Amino acid sequence: MRIPILKLKDYLLVSVQIELDDQTALQFQEDLLNKIHKEGSMGVVIDLTSVEMIDSFIAKVLGDVVDMSNLMGTKVVLTGIQPAVAITLVDMGIELGGVQTALDLEQGMEKLQQVLEG
Amino acid sequence: MRIPILKLKDYLLVSVQIELDDQTALQFQEDLLNKIHKEGSMGVVIDLTSVEMIDSFIAKVLGDVVDMSNLMGTKVVLTGIQPAVAITLVDMGIELGGVQTALDLEQGMEKLQQVLEG
Repeated sequence: MRIPILKLKDYLLVSVQIELDDQTALQFQEDLLNKIHKEGSMGVVIDLTSVEMIDSFIAKVLGDVVDMSNLMGTKVVLTGIQPAVAITLVDMGIELGGVQTALDLEQGMEKLQQVLEG
Repeated sequence: MRIPILKLKDYLLVSVQIELDDQTALQFQEDLLNKIHKEGSMGVVIDLTSVEMIDSFIAKVLGDVVDMSNLMGTKVVLTGIQPAVAITLVDMGIELGGVQTALDLEQGMEKLQQVLEG
């Protein structure tokens, strides 16, 4: 199963609305990086509102996606992180260096615009 | 399998990036109408760029989704309709009354704003 990645202007939007198993997460990582490369996207918003919890593997993949996207020169904003997801990320020591966060997709888009403009 | 529906401001965005089987299409119909009701959305953009062909059942469901959304007071813009999809829709006599179309998601959002403001 693949997570759809939407292109809107210079940004990519992702809303994770299915349960993330290992294979899906890795496929998403590959798809997102390819799409960033193909579209030359300046920023990505990944909305996790529907994700209630993650295991350590998914937390690792998520942290990797952020690091890899940053390496490619793309800003990442994570939105809608639920308590259990935040706990797992911190417990796992995933630093999410330099990642911006916001409450929902809309605020995430605004934050991305602020970051890229200023 | 469910098709993710993203909320952005007063709009809903849908990008169909999986093959539409009968069950998925009906589930999408139900999910979209529920989301329109819940969010009070003024407009919906459904991007079909990744859909290469549809059968007669899917064409009917798609036409129904547009009609139902209109009945609920929501404007629908369809984007990225490929040749084979256009042919099936017309061959099936799906009128898509009053539906706006655009080339891609971005232009679809712009068209929606124009329609709703004008």
